[in-house]
Amino acid sequence: MTGGGLADLAWIGCDWGGSSLRAFAVGADGRVLAVRRSEDGAGGLTPDGFEPALMALVADWLPDAPPAAIGVLICGMAGSRTGWREAAYCDPLVPLTRLAAAAAAAPAQDPRIRPLILPGYARGDPPDVMRGEETQLLGLIGTEPGFAGLVCLPGTHSKWARIADDRLTASATMMTGEIFALLARQSILRQSLRPAAALVDEAGFRAAVQQGMADPAMVLPAMFALRAADLTGGGTDPERAADRLSGLLIGLELAALPQTGWRAGEAVVVIGAPALAGRYAVALDACGIPARQVSGETLVIAGLRAAHARLVETGSWPHMM
Amino acid sequence: MTGGGLADLAWIGCDWGGSSLRAFAVGADGRVLAVRRSEDGAGGLTPDGFEPALMALVADWLPDAPPAAIGVLICGMAGSRTGWREAAYCDPLVPLTRLAAAAAAAPAQDPRIRPLILPGYARGDPPDVMRGEETQLLGLIGTEPGFAGLVCLPGTHSKWARIADDRLTASATMMTGEIFALLARQSILRQSLRPAAALVDEAGFRAAVQQGMADPAMVLPAMFALRAADLTGGGTDPERAADRLSGLLIGLELAALPQTGWRAGEAVVVIGAPALAGRYAVALDACGIPARQVSGETLVIAGLRAAHARLVETGSWPHMM
Repeated sequence: MTGGGLADLAWIGCDWGGSSLRAFAVGADGRVLAVRRSEDGAGGLTPDGFEPALMALVADWLPDAPPAAIGVLICGMAGSRTGWREAAYCDPLVPLTRLAAAAAAAPAQDPRIRPLILPGYARGDPPDVMRGEETQLLGLIGTEPGFAGLVCLPGTHSKWARIADDRLTASATMMTGEIFALLARQSILRQSLRPAAALVDEAGFRAAVQQGMADPAMVLPAMFALRAADLTGGGTDPERAADRLSGLLIGLELAALPQTGWRAGEAVVVIGAPALAGRYAVALDACGIPARQVSGETLVIAGLRAAHARLVETGSWPHMM
Repeated sequence: MTGGGLADLAWIGCDWGGSSLRAFAVGADGRVLAVRRSEDGAGGLTPDGFEPALMALVADWLPDAPPAAIGVLICGMAGSRTGWREAAYCDPLVPLTRLAAAAAAAPAQDPRIRPLILPGYARGDPPDVMRGEETQLLGLIGTEPGFAGLVCLPGTHSKWARIADDRLTASATMMTGEIFALLARQSILRQSLRPAAALVDEAGFRAAVQQGMADPAMVLPAMFALRAADLTGGGTDPERAADRLSGLLIGLELAALPQTGWRAGEAVVVIGAPALAGRYAVALDACGIPARQVSGETLVIAGLRAAHARLVETGSWPHMM
C-alpha cells in the first residue's frame, strides 16, 4: 500500500440511514479502527450526492494509490429506490446469512473505492419493508448463533421482527416515533408538551404505557386530555406530559404485539441506542414483558462484518474486479 | 337609523373558529339577512387584531351613526385565553340555555359595535374543553326541544357530546382530523397518499373503519402497511390509500365510543359541513350505528339566536349600555 490513508485499513462499512451516515474503518483482522458520523442522511441526498457525502467523511482514510480499490459495504436507505443505487428488496425466504449475495454495486467516480449496497427485505400480506435493520439482525444471529425470538428495533419507525432458523419469519413497522414527533412539535399538543430524551416521569410513563396497551381505544381521547388538563389549570409539567404522550403511543404499539406473534411471557430483545432502547425496555417492563437491551451500533458492525465475511467466502469480494 | 349600512340589521352573530370567521347579519325578526366568511381565524390573531378582522368583514353592514351600538354576539376561539378577550369556561352543570349569562364583553374602538363573547365548557376527570361547539348544541336543543342523546361534531378536533336535560353530561375530544392531516401531509405516508374531500373508495373506507373500530391495536401497523404496499408494488391509488388512512383513524375514534357512554343501537347525531359529516355518517353506518346528519351552520345560527333571545329576556341585551 502506498502513502497516505489509515494504516491497516482493509474495508469500510457504512450504516446509511434516512437522516444520518455512520462509517466504520475496518482492519484486515476485522477490528474497527475508526468511526465517523455525519448528518448526510439518504433522505436528503439525490443519487449523485452519495459519493461526495461518503468521501467527505472517509477520504482521508484512503491511501493515495491503493493497490486495489477499497470495498465499501453499505446497509440502509442508500439502497432505496431514490438512493445511491437501488438494492432490490429480498424475499424473507432468503436467510439473513445469505443476504449479501443480493448486494448491488453503486457507481463511483473515485477509483479508490468500490461501494456495494446490501438489500433489505419486503413481504406482503400484510405488507412490510425493512432497510438497514436486517443488518443489525444479521449481527444478532452472528453474535448469538441460533438466536430465535422476537426483536424490537425502536426508532422513527419501530420495527418488530421475529427470527427463527436465521430467517426473518415475521415483521411489522409502526410509525410511533414519527407520530410522536409530529404531535409534540406540530399539533395543538405542542403548546402543552416539551419532549426530553431521558424519562422525566417514569411512573407517569409506565401508567400511560399500561393504559395504551390495555385499552388502545382510549389513546385518542387521552391524547387531547393532556391539552385540556393544561387549559383548565390541572395540567402537568410539559416534560411530564411529553412522557405521558410517549407512553400512550408506545402502549398502542405494544397492544399490537399479541397479533404479531408474541406469546405471553416471551422475552423481547430491544436493539437500539441506549436512551430510546432504554425507554422501550421500561415500557415492556411496565407491561410485564421481559426485555433485554443490545447496542444497535455493536450489531450493525457485527452484521456488516458477517456480510463481508460471507462475500469473501463466496469469492464475491472484492466485487467487480 | 341614519344613512348607510344594511337595512333592518338588528344584531350580528359570529362563529369565530381557530382558522376562520363567519359573520351573520340578523334582522329584528331573527332572519339572517346576509352571511360572510373570511380566513381570519382566531388562531392567527393577536388580541388587538380581532376588531380590525371583524370590521373588515362587517363594517359596511353598519349604519354611519346608529342610535345605539349594534351588538355582536360571538362564539368560538375568540373567547380563548389568547383570543380577543377570555370568556372563562363554564362548568357543565350550567345548562346550555343559560350559557349566555356568562358571556364576556370584548373591548372595541368603534363606538358602533358592542362585542360579546359566549363561553365554552370545561370539565375534569377526564379533562376536556369545548369552545364553539356548545353553541351548535344550544342550537340543536333549540330546534329539537327536549333532545337527549349522543352528538358527534367532526373536525380538526372531533367533539363527542352527550346531552340530557339541556345539559352537556359528557364530552370527549379526539384529534382525528389533525392527526390525519399531519400524517397525510408531513409523514412518510405523504409519498403514498393524496387526500380528497369526497370519498373516492367508499368500500375501502368502510373496511378500514371496521378494522380500526374492531381492532384498534392494529391501527399503527396498518398505517405503515399503506406505505409498504406502495414500495413493494402492491400499492393502491394514492386517493384510495388516503381513504384507508382516514378510515383507520375514524375507526380508532369510534372504538372509544362504548367508553364514552354510547350504548349499542343508540343513534348518533352528526353535526358539521356536508362533506365531513357525510364521511362520519358513512363510517358510523359501516359499524352498524344509526346516524343522522344536521348542518353545522344552521345550528350555529340557531344557537346564536337562542343565546341572543335569552340575553334579551334577562334584560342583558344590549349589554353595557
